Amino acid sequence: MTVMIQPLILCGGAGTRLWPESRGHRAKQFLPLTGTQSLFQQTVQRTPASAAFLPPIILCGDAHVAAVRDQMNEREAALVVEPMPRGTAAAIALAVARADADTLLLVMPSDHVIVDVPAFHAAIAKGAQLAQQDWIVTFGITPDGPETGFGYIANGDALGEDGFAVDRFIEKPPLAEAEAMLAAGGYSWNAGIFLFRAGRMRDAMLTHCRAIFEAADAAVAAAIIDGDALYADAVHFARAPSDSIDYAVMEKDDRVAVIPAAMGWSDLGSWQAVHTRAPKDAVGNAVTGETFLHDSHGNLVRSGGKRVSLIGMDNIAVIVDGDDILVMPLARSQDVRAAAKARE
Amino acid sequence: MTVMIQPLILCGGAGTRLWPESRGHRAKQFLPLTGTQSLFQQTVQRTPASAAFLPPIILCGDAHVAAVRDQMNEREAALVVEPMPRGTAAAIALAVARADADTLLLVMPSDHVIVDVPAFHAAIAKGAQLAQQDWIVTFGITPDGPETGFGYIANGDALGEDGFAVDRFIEKPPLAEAEAMLAAGGYSWNAGIFLFRAGRMRDAMLTHCRAIFEAADAAVAAAIIDGDALYADAVHFARAPSDSIDYAVMEKDDRVAVIPAAMGWSDLGSWQAVHTRAPKDAVGNAVTGETFLHDSHGNLVRSGGKRVSLIGMDNIAVIVDGDDILVMPLARSQDVRAAAKARE
Repeated sequence: MTVMIQPLILCGGAGTRLWPESRGHRAKQFLPLTGTQSLFQQTVQRTPASAAFLPPIILCGDAHVAAVRDQMNEREAALVVEPMPRGTAAAIALAVARADADTLLLVMPSDHVIVDVPAFHAAIAKGAQLAQQDWIVTFGITPDGPETGFGYIANGDALGEDGFAVDRFIEKPPLAEAEAMLAAGGYSWNAGIFLFRAGRMRDAMLTHCRAIFEAADAAVAAAIIDGDALYADAVHFARAPSDSIDYAVMEKDDRVAVIPAAMGWSDLGSWQAVHTRAPKDAVGNAVTGETFLHDSHGNLVRSGGKRVSLIGMDNIAVIVDGDDILVMPLARSQDVRAAAKARE
Repeated sequence: MTVMIQPLILCGGAGTRLWPESRGHRAKQFLPLTGTQSLFQQTVQRTPASAAFLPPIILCGDAHVAAVRDQMNEREAALVVEPMPRGTAAAIALAVARADADTLLLVMPSDHVIVDVPAFHAAIAKGAQLAQQDWIVTFGITPDGPETGFGYIANGDALGEDGFAVDRFIEKPPLAEAEAMLAAGGYSWNAGIFLFRAGRMRDAMLTHCRAIFEAADAAVAAAIIDGDALYADAVHFARAPSDSIDYAVMEKDDRVAVIPAAMGWSDLGSWQAVHTRAPKDAVGNAVTGETFLHDSHGNLVRSGGKRVSLIGMDNIAVIVDGDDILVMPLARSQDVRAAAKARE
């Protein structure tokens, strides 16, 4: 590709579905869930400073600035700090407001796993061509099962060999509908990864969600600059309606493209997903820390500095963090929020 | 009863089946497993100083002297300290060797629960009459299920209205045999509670296990007395063969009686037994400490100062103690030793 790409890493999430490890100041993206590097660090390394990528912009809240700086180590980056959470539309608008119109912005969540980075880079190269033709590009994950926890994207007309105009976005579907889409083909998961010309997104926002963009634009104009960090103005930013980029722009715009990509993606959106991705022993146990497993199979144990002994347990999660100990079947991972809410 | 009874509380056990709470210097009998009082404290209170009972003799090892003194509080007691574990026969021999011949010794394990203390006292009163006629008396627990974890006692000829000569002792039986005994009637569980005249037991030991008695007798003669504590001599005591009172005396003597008693007894021999005896909520959960239970039933949670959250778990034990966390189905409670062995 001839034009450089500006990575924009969204780092504002809380990740309560991975409670108790993920909580408060130590959100999911800062945890080393699949190795020694945190998901945030893996995301940063996925677009290394090079002929293709500019140093990243990190978009985060006040509470996470210290974690971001700590985990960036010495790598060059610009920080954009949102004074309060207002959804992904307003967050992205902060970056759009301060970018040159011809900058290609690559929006990435900070808490996902992508195993096949070359496939990711190849998809970006394809997407960059469409983005320069003023398509707002999404990267669709090739489904490997009838997941009901993700939104789906339906392919429309082909755009060359590698992409499609988006026919429509489908919200998290019931199982029957997910199975039907999987059987029909031509659908992919919406992973929240986007590529677009900044000027194109500015125009789209002014058309589809003007109040969001104007609040973000004013918050940038009145921002405090502190070294490499821009602190958006709270009074202006607070006026932005809270919405996701999907609702505010993607579903309303008529020139959105999707590049389907099989790149070993996971959102690690539950302890079950962490277990699926983790290295396991011969009987399916994925453990960290000091453990004793007797006649136990298919478990996820994260011992958090304590010592966990399992006897005769199958397919459960035991997550230890500080004074909190969570025990549940892996299949109940979606219910973690109940405990997190009771505790925090 | 006209004669006073000398309680002898055996406090030398380790209780590894209740790991991780029970371990090392803090054995099962010193834990508050069914309320605020430890099992040892409950045992002491079961024979209060009165017209019926003398102050107790506590028989324990060196490692547990501090715990005994701490938990006795201000109550009067004599300590007999065994220099090393040599089984219940040698332990009881220490007390027999220093007792007057006509003293009635009531031997009790320190780590059992008896809910119906009046029934216990009534059984003792009946037993005392037989003991004064030189029967060695055992108290047999009326079975409430075909337990395979206990020894059984078969009734022989009736001795008045309340007792029987023991026909024979049966070791922990297979399930079919346990069921047959339960169906037949006339069997009770051997709870290790005995009542006898000291001189009678001395004679029985000299007949059935002379080496044990002579070693204990010499260890008492050479003992060090420190206030209320007698420290048996290690060199002499070490010569005692290690054996249980059941094997060494009871099964060999031909004048052993059993008083069947229904007194809400439990040996709390496993976490499952602790769950059975513990107060439970409407859906069968027995918890101590700070817990959050969501859609979870029939569990035992002992949170050990941490906070335990269960989601969708049924019939498991979660035992937290210091840095150790044990998770298992309650039905697997007998396998705890595997974990204890790996840890200690």
